[in-house]
Amino acid sequence: MIGVGLIGTGFMGKCHALAWTSVRTVFGDVPPIRMVHLGEASDELARKRAAEFGFDKASADWRGVVEDPEVDVVSVTTPNQCHPEMAIAVLQAGKHVWCEKPMAPAFAEAEAMLAAARASGKVAALGYNYIQSPAIRHIRTLLGEKAIGEVNHLRVEMDEDFMADPDAPFFWKHEAASGYGALDDFAVHPLSLIQTLFGRVASVMCDMARPYADRAVPGGGRRAVETYDIASSLIRLENGVSGTLLVNRSAWGRKGRIQIQIFGSRGSIVFDQERFNELQLYVTWDRPTEQGYRTILAAPHHQPYDRFIPAPGHGLGFNDLKTIECRELIRRIEGAPATLIEFDEGLEIERTVHAMARSFAEQRWVAVR
Amino acid sequence: MIGVGLIGTGFMGKCHALAWTSVRTVFGDVPPIRMVHLGEASDELARKRAAEFGFDKASADWRGVVEDPEVDVVSVTTPNQCHPEMAIAVLQAGKHVWCEKPMAPAFAEAEAMLAAARASGKVAALGYNYIQSPAIRHIRTLLGEKAIGEVNHLRVEMDEDFMADPDAPFFWKHEAASGYGALDDFAVHPLSLIQTLFGRVASVMCDMARPYADRAVPGGGRRAVETYDIASSLIRLENGVSGTLLVNRSAWGRKGRIQIQIFGSRGSIVFDQERFNELQLYVTWDRPTEQGYRTILAAPHHQPYDRFIPAPGHGLGFNDLKTIECRELIRRIEGAPATLIEFDEGLEIERTVHAMARSFAEQRWVAVR
Amino acid sequence: MIGVGLIGTGFMGKCHALAWTSVRTVFGDVPPIRMVHLGEASDELARKRAAEFGFDKASADWRGVVEDPEVDVVSVTTPNQCHPEMAIAVLQAGKHVWCEKPMAPAFAEAEAMLAAARASGKVAALGYNYIQSPAIRHIRTLLGEKAIGEVNHLRVEMDEDFMADPDAPFFWKHEAASGYGALDDFAVHPLSLIQTLFGRVASVMCDMARPYADRAVPGGGRRAVETYDIASSLIRLENGVSGTLLVNRSAWGRKGRIQIQIFGSRGSIVFDQERFNELQLYVTWDRPTEQGYRTILAAPHHQPYDRFIPAPGHGLGFNDLKTIECRELIRRIEGAPATLIEFDEGLEIERTVHAMARSFAEQRWVAVR
Amino acid sequence: MIGVGLIGTGFMGKCHALAWTSVRTVFGDVPPIRMVHLGEASDELARKRAAEFGFDKASADWRGVVEDPEVDVVSVTTPNQCHPEMAIAVLQAGKHVWCEKPMAPAFAEAEAMLAAARASGKVAALGYNYIQSPAIRHIRTLLGEKAIGEVNHLRVEMDEDFMADPDAPFFWKHEAASGYGALDDFAVHPLSLIQTLFGRVASVMCDMARPYADRAVPGGGRRAVETYDIASSLIRLENGVSGTLLVNRSAWGRKGRIQIQIFGSRGSIVFDQERFNELQLYVTWDRPTEQGYRTILAAPHHQPYDRFIPAPGHGLGFNDLKTIECRELIRRIEGAPATLIEFDEGLEIERTVHAMARSFAEQRWVAVR
Repeated sequence: MIGVGLIGTGFMGKCHALAWTSVRTVFGDVPPIRMVHLGEASDELARKRAAEFGFDKASADWRGVVEDPEVDVVSVTTPNQCHPEMAIAVLQAGKHVWCEKPMAPAFAEAEAMLAAARASGKVAALGYNYIQSPAIRHIRTLLGEKAIGEVNHLRVEMDEDFMADPDAPFFWKHEAASGYGALDDFAVHPLSLIQTLFGRVASVMCDMARPYADRAVPGGGRRAVETYDIASSLIRLENGVSGTLLVNRSAWGRKGRIQIQIFGSRGSIVFDQERFNELQLYVTWDRPTEQGYRTILAAPHHQPYDRFIPAPGHGLGFNDLKTIECRELIRRIEGAPATLIEFDEGLEIERTVHAMARSFAEQRWVAVR
Repeated sequence: MIGVGLIGTGFMGKCHALAWTSVRTVFGDVPPIRMVHLGEASDELARKRAAEFGFDKASADWRGVVEDPEVDVVSVTTPNQCHPEMAIAVLQAGKHVWCEKPMAPAFAEAEAMLAAARASGKVAALGYNYIQSPAIRHIRTLLGEKAIGEVNHLRVEMDEDFMADPDAPFFWKHEAASGYGALDDFAVHPLSLIQTLFGRVASVMCDMARPYADRAVPGGGRRAVETYDIASSLIRLENGVSGTLLVNRSAWGRKGRIQIQIFGSRGSIVFDQERFNELQLYVTWDRPTEQGYRTILAAPHHQPYDRFIPAPGHGLGFNDLKTIECRELIRRIEGAPATLIEFDEGLEIERTVHAMARSFAEQRWVAVR
Repeated sequence: MIGVGLIGTGFMGKCHALAWTSVRTVFGDVPPIRMVHLGEASDELARKRAAEFGFDKASADWRGVVEDPEVDVVSVTTPNQCHPEMAIAVLQAGKHVWCEKPMAPAFAEAEAMLAAARASGKVAALGYNYIQSPAIRHIRTLLGEKAIGEVNHLRVEMDEDFMADPDAPFFWKHEAASGYGALDDFAVHPLSLIQTLFGRVASVMCDMARPYADRAVPGGGRRAVETYDIASSLIRLENGVSGTLLVNRSAWGRKGRIQIQIFGSRGSIVFDQERFNELQLYVTWDRPTEQGYRTILAAPHHQPYDRFIPAPGHGLGFNDLKTIECRELIRRIEGAPATLIEFDEGLEIERTVHAMARSFAEQRWVAVR
Repeated sequence: MIGVGLIGTGFMGKCHALAWTSVRTVFGDVPPIRMVHLGEASDELARKRAAEFGFDKASADWRGVVEDPEVDVVSVTTPNQCHPEMAIAVLQAGKHVWCEKPMAPAFAEAEAMLAAARASGKVAALGYNYIQSPAIRHIRTLLGEKAIGEVNHLRVEMDEDFMADPDAPFFWKHEAASGYGALDDFAVHPLSLIQTLFGRVASVMCDMARPYADRAVPGGGRRAVETYDIASSLIRLENGVSGTLLVNRSAWGRKGRIQIQIFGSRGSIVFDQERFNELQLYVTWDRPTEQGYRTILAAPHHQPYDRFIPAPGHGLGFNDLKTIECRELIRRIEGAPATLIEFDEGLEIERTVHAMARSFAEQRWVAVR
C-alpha cells in the first residue's frame, strides 16, 4: 500500500491525481494506492479538490501533507519557485518526492535539491513525462539495436503558440525574475529526451530573440518584455554528435510540437509530439526502390502501450504518459530498474539551460560543465 | 454516490474500469463513484481483477453483481452473445446498464433488450465511444452551424488488419454462427457516427467479400471461411443524403482507421480515427487563393478536451473517450441531456446492419425499415 | 522524323504540344519531331497558336491538318463530341491518331472508332496519362512481384470541386445531352488505372446523386440539373477482386484527387494523384514492430523519372505525364511494346461507364459484357 | 527571335534545354526561341546532344558557342569551377549569360563575374530556380500583404541523402579543394529563398560536422574526408529577424527537402520543396476553434501555374521551375521587371556562405559584410 500526498492541483496536479488513480488498474503489478492528503492554497479549494480527486484529507498548509505519517510519497506540482522548499521538506521528512519540472529557477537551488535527495536516500523523481511514450521508448530500442546505424546528427525543435498573440498583455512570464523565457519553459523538455536517448550535452552556442519588444500593461501604457520567447542553440553532445535545439513559445500554429530528427549512418528517425502515437522511420535494410519514411503507429508491441489498450493504432493520450511515469516511479521505489529523470539527471538538464543562457549573454560557445 | 458493478474484464472491461475510476477526477461535477462488485468467469480471476481495479467484492457468478443491493449501475463487457441475458437481467433488477456494443447477434434479441429497457424505466446505454471525441463533437457543432453549407454526400470507411494474415488459423470469428463478419465487428461503429451526425439510414445496397476462402485448422487440414471480412455498401440516409460505408477487417496497414468524408455545399470535412485529435476542414469563407484543408488540433475550446488537459494539441487517448462516455451516462442517469447511444438508437444501428446483410443475400437495394 | 498535326489548343491541346516539343529532349531515343500543322476554330486563333507552339502551318479547317501529307500522326484534343468524326478521319487518311479521352459520348460512336482503327492498321491511342506516372508504374511492378501478396480488394476515388459551387450558373455540363455527369468526366480515369493494374471490370452496381437540384440560368430563373455530379459504384473485376469506384465533381477541397487503395494478402498500397510523386506501401516483410506505411518518393530508379531528373524527390509535373505518354505512343508506332490505352481497351472503359449508368437506371447489378 | 547557346548537358544542361524548348509554348508571350549552338566536351557528345536537344550546331570547344554570332544568350551549366571563365567570356562577347549556381568556388572569382556583368551591361542571371515556384511566389505575396503579420523568426533546412552512405568511396566532393561541403552544395539554395523573401543576412554563427571521418579509396585503403556534409547556422537578417539555416547532405531519407518555417505576429507559413505544389498556412483571421494549418494546393490563381495547367491541384514538376526562370530571364532581357537572382544578389549569397565558413573556422559570430 502506497500513501500519496499531492501539493498543487493545477494542470500538473490534476495530471498526477489521474496517474495515481489509474496506475494500478492499468498496470496491475503495482501495490494498492491510497490517496491520503491533498494540499492547496486555501481550505475551501483543498477540500473541494480532495473530494473530486478522492483524497481522504485536505490541508491549506502544504506542510500538513509532508508531515502526514500516512503519506509515503508526495507529488509536488506547484509553481517552479516553490519546488526547492517543498521538495527538500519532503525528502527531509523521509519521503519520496515526485516533483514537476524544472527543478528550480536558480541553479544553486537545484543543487540543494539534489543534495537533499542524496542525503535522504529516498527517490527524488522529476515529471519529465515525454520520455515515457511508447514511441520514444521504441526509438530508444531502435537506437540501441543500431537500426539506423551510428547516429551522427540531431535536430530538435519545441514550439507552442501560447505567447504568440502580440495583443496579449504583459504578465509575470515577461519579467526577468521569471527566468530566461523559452529556455526555462521549453528547452528542459527536449533536453530530457536528448539525455534519455543520447546522453549529456557537452557544449552549447545559443541565440535568443524577442518577437515583441513590449506589451500592453493592464491599466494603460506598455512595458518592455524582459524574457525571450525564442531560443536557438547549436549543440554538441558528449558522445561527439552535433545538432541543434530550437524552441519558440510564440510560434503561431504549433500547439505541442516537439519534433526530433535523428540522422544515422543507416537511416533516420523523425518524431513529433503533436502526433506522439506515431513514429517515422527510414531504414536502408531493403532495396532502394521501396525505401521511404514509414509511419509506425503505436501498438501493443511497443510497450507499455499494451497495458492501456490491446489493439494497435487506437492511441494513448497525454495523461497516459504521466501514468506510465507513475509506474516507473513506483518501480524505482521498489528498487527495480526504471526509466525516470531523477534529480541527478535533472540537474544536468538545468545545467545545460543555464549554459545556454550564458552562451547567449557572452555570444560564444560555452562548455556545459 | 454511485455504486458500480462490472461484468467482464477484457479489453472493454478494463476500459470501463478506468473510466469509472477517473471520471470524477477528470470532470469534478459527478458524484463520488464506488467500485462495488466485479464479476468474472472464475473466483480466482474475479478476485485478482477486483484487487487490481479497486472493487470491493468479486463474484464468479455474474448474477451476484446484478443482485448486489449496493450496485446502482452495471457495466456489461462480456462477449456479444452474453449481452441480451445480462443486460435484461440488470434492467429487470431495477438498475441502469452500460452495455458494450453491439447489442446482440440476433435482431430479435436486441429488440428484447430494448423492450426490457423501456419496461424498466432505467438508463440503458451502449458503448459507442467514438461519438465522444472532441473532434467528432466539434464536427457536429460545425454541421449544426452550416459551416460547410448543406451536406450532400458522405463517405465512411472503417478498416483494421487483425484478420489480414492468411496464415492465421481458422477460429470462431470465421464461423457463420458468429455473425456476418465485418458488418457485426465494424459497421456498427461508423453507423453510430452516421446516426449521431446525420440521422438514420433509409436504404442500403451491400456487397461482401472474403479475402481468403479457407484457413488452416489447428491439428491439420483447412476449413472454409464462412464470414465476410469485407463489406461495401451504398447508402441513402433518411435526410436524402447519399453515401458509402466501406468496412474491411483484413486491410493490412490499417490499425484503427475510421475515415469520414463529409461533402457540403460550402465546404467539406475529413476525419480519421487513427488521428482522432485532428480534424480536416475545408471552407469557402475566405478568398480562394488561401483555401485548403486545415488541420485543426483538438484543444480546450473543443469540449470536453479542457477537462482532461488545459493546453491545446497535447492529445486525448482512446481510453479517455470511454471516460467522456461515462460522464454522459452519469448525466443521463441524473436526468440531464447527454450525448449517448441508448438502446433505441442502438437497435436502429443493428437494424441497418441486418438490412445490409439481407441486401447482399438478395443482391438488391433494401429499405432499412 | 515524325510529322505532327494538332487539332485543338485548349487544356489538352497545349499539353500535347508540350509533349511533342519536349519528348526528344527528355528521352533522346525517339526520332526528330516536326510540328507540322495546327488546326483551330478560326484562322486567327490557329495562326496565333501555331506561332506559340512552333507549328509550321495553321488551318481553320481541321481537315487540312488530317490531309496534310507531311503529317504522320494527329493529336485530337477537341471536345468529346468531335472525337469520333475527327479520329476516324485521321485513321482513314492512313495516319496514326492520339485522341483525348473519353472516346465519344455514345457507345456506338466509340465502337465505330475502334472499327476504323482496326481497318486502318494504324496506332490509335487515347490520352489516359495517369497510367504513365512513375509511381503507378512502380505499383504495377510491385503487384507483378506479389510484393503485397494476392490482391483481394480495391477502393478507388476521384474527386474535384470544379462543380461544387451551388451559385455557379447552369451550363452545358448540366444538360443530359452532355452525358451522365461525373461518370463521363471522371470515372474513365480511374477505370484506365484499374484496367492497367488489374484488368477489366466484370460487373457493376452504381448509385448516382445530384448535390444541387437546380441552378440559376443566366438571364434569370432556375433550371433543373440533368446530370449527376456524384457516382458511387460497387465493382467486381474479372479476376475476382471486388471493390468500389467513387467519383464526385462537386467535392469541395479536392482538386485533382485520385486515391487508390489496394489490399493484398501480404500488404497494401495507397496512392493519391494530388501527390503523384509519392506512393504509400505497407508490407509485412520485416518484423511487426517496424511495420508502417512507407512514403516512397519518386526517384530515378522508378523509371522513366530518370529521363526527366537524375535526382530523387524533385518531382515530375502533370505535363510530364503526357510527355511519357507521347514517348509510349512513338514506341508503339515503331512497333515496340508500350504502356498505352489504345482504342480497344478504351472501348472497354466506355463499356464499363455505360454499364454503370444502366445499373443506376435499373437499380441493379449489371454485367459489363 | 532569341538565339540560344548551351554549354554543358548534364543534369542542369538538359534542364536548360527543356526550358528553352518549352518556354514559348507555355507562356506564349515570349519571342521565338532558336536553339543555335551546343557545346560539350567532345565532338561526338556535342553532336549527339545537339541532335537530341534540337540545336543546329555543336562544338567541342565552348568558345565556339560563345563566339557564334547567331547566339544571343548562353546557358552555362558546366561544373562550378568552370563558371567564372565561361560566364565572363560570354559577357565580354556582349551576350547575356544564364549561369548555374553557385557562381564560383572562390569569392574573388565571383566578384570578377559581377564586375564583368556590370562592365558588359548584359543580363547575368543565376539558376536559382526554387524561388520560381508558384507556392514560393504566393508566400512572397502573403508576406507582402502581412497575412501573417510581422515576421519575427525563420527556420530553414535543406537536406538530401546522396552522401549518406558510409560505404560509398571517397571522391572529389570529399576533397577540401571542392569547397566547404554542404555549404557550397546546399546552403546557397535556401539563401536564395531567404534573400528573395526577406532580404540579406547580416551575421552568422555556424557549426559544421563530418558524419564520416574517412572513406574507402578505390584500390584500397581509406582517406580522411576533408569537407563537411553538415552545416548548422544561427542567422540574423538585416531586417532584424533571427533564425536558423541547417543543411545536411548525408540525411538518410531526405531527397529534396527544403523546409521553411516562417513565424509572424499573426500566423505562420511552412513550406517543403519535396511537396512544392503545397503550402501550409496558419492564420489567426477567423475564430480560434477552426484555426489550423491549411494545406493549400498550387492552382491557376497562384501564377504562373495557370500558364502550365488550367486546373488546380494537378502539380508542376521540378523542370517547370526552370521554364519559369527562363521566362523571367527573357522578361529581364526585354527590360521588364523580373523575379531573378542576378550576379549582384548571387554575390551576396556567396558572401554569406563564405562568412559561415569563417564563422566556423573562428568559432564566433561573423558579420556578413
